[in-house]
Amino acid sequence: MLILKTLIVVSHPEINASQTQQFLMQGAKLQDVTWHHVEDLKEIDVDKEQALLMDADRIIFQFPLYWYAAPAGLKNWEDKVLTRNFIYGDGDDNLGDKEFGIVVNTGMPAKDFQRGGSENITIDEIMAPYHAIADRAKMQILPTFVISQFQYLDDQKQMQTLIDYQRYLTQVYPDTLANRQAWFEREFTDRLKYFSGTSCTECETVLNTFIQRREDVDQLKSTISLIKQGEEE
Amino acid sequence: MLILKTLIVVSHPEINASQTQQFLMQGAKLQDVTWHHVEDLKEIDVDKEQALLMDADRIIFQFPLYWYAAPAGLKNWEDKVLTRNFIYGDGDDNLGDKEFGIVVNTGMPAKDFQRGGSENITIDEIMAPYHAIADRAKMQILPTFVISQFQYLDDQKQMQTLIDYQRYLTQVYPDTLANRQAWFEREFTDRLKYFSGTSCTECETVLNTFIQRREDVDQLKSTISLIKQGEEE
Repeated sequence: MLILKTLIVVSHPEINASQTQQFLMQGAKLQDVTWHHVEDLKEIDVDKEQALLMDADRIIFQFPLYWYAAPAGLKNWEDKVLTRNFIYGDGDDNLGDKEFGIVVNTGMPAKDFQRGGSENITIDEIMAPYHAIADRAKMQILPTFVISQFQYLDDQKQMQTLIDYQRYLTQVYPDTLANRQAWFEREFTDRLKYFSGTSCTECETVLNTFIQRREDVDQLKSTISLIKQGEEE
Repeated sequence: MLILKTLIVVSHPEINASQTQQFLMQGAKLQDVTWHHVEDLKEIDVDKEQALLMDADRIIFQFPLYWYAAPAGLKNWEDKVLTRNFIYGDGDDNLGDKEFGIVVNTGMPAKDFQRGGSENITIDEIMAPYHAIADRAKMQILPTFVISQFQYLDDQKQMQTLIDYQRYLTQVYPDTLANRQAWFEREFTDRLKYFSGTSCTECETVLNTFIQRREDVDQLKSTISLIKQGEEE
């Protein structure tokens, strides 16, 4: 199975005070995921940063929305690390086979970000400068992952956000049912391992049932496909 | 005559090394124009910066384009100075009667900034986050003043750019013939004063001819208008 290496370039000037970022940081503690907080860097070592980018399969910019853009810390990092030659100069294609995503959290509700809404601009319009960089680097752009008013979500919705965030970090793109199922199976199997000392028969039953059901669905799909073929002939 | 007070919020991390910014700085030495370089500020005094903004009639953000946005220095200034309450909170309307413009210089030719061009994004799309701020503050947005590849312009085109820039800073909006004429008359009269010690008969002749011609055109326009009225009745 394909295992992605994901780099999260996080920008927040006061990250310890941010409930949302602390929550996401817990969620990002996954295999093959690197949490990289730019405001924590004492100085920016361009070669080291570029090597980090080169080493990843999926690059995520993650930040709170401040005046329709990332905080100044990310722009400072961009201005230093993303040299023209590294991104597209001299026919280089350093990031060309990678995926690019954005995780943004906003203090305003999602409905504000549309024409006629109180922000009167869409999230895609706001993210255009970042996508222009990704385009220049010939990266594959993922749909932006928006977290609106995280602090107002109830516990269940916060947990749902966390799972969706984890899928955004590591699930194979595009977000089809098959990719979701494969992700869930792998993650659940991985997490079961932590119970190795104690027994979790219930967990194993849940996982086995899930796998059985998925196989049933696959079987049904293939049957339907055969019937359709028969009708068309 | 209406005299505008213009504040130019300039951002460039190495402004002394920038031929374009040095040239513009000379052009900005006009009455009622304040050049305010954010990277030169030792610390950002929010109250003082907000007072500067309140005192201006026209606010210009001026910067070179780095990765489809202003340099990090301007974002840092924005994140600190533009508090939510100052821009739109609590029904405040501190900047509501002011004009907002952007002066941006690019290393790429203008034709690159369109769909299908090598940048594949327009200048307006790039500036959308700044315009969203201006919209939130209920400011009047001026068309962006773009300077492309300044260093490749010949002397005459550089001078033309300088005059257009000066008009952008201080001419009454919108950019009609009448407003251009009024601006030129005022500026030429002002500049003649510097010759007070010596005599510049030629300059005075040019100015008087210009004024005479402008009055002739005004007279002709009013005659045409009368004839049209006659035809319509």
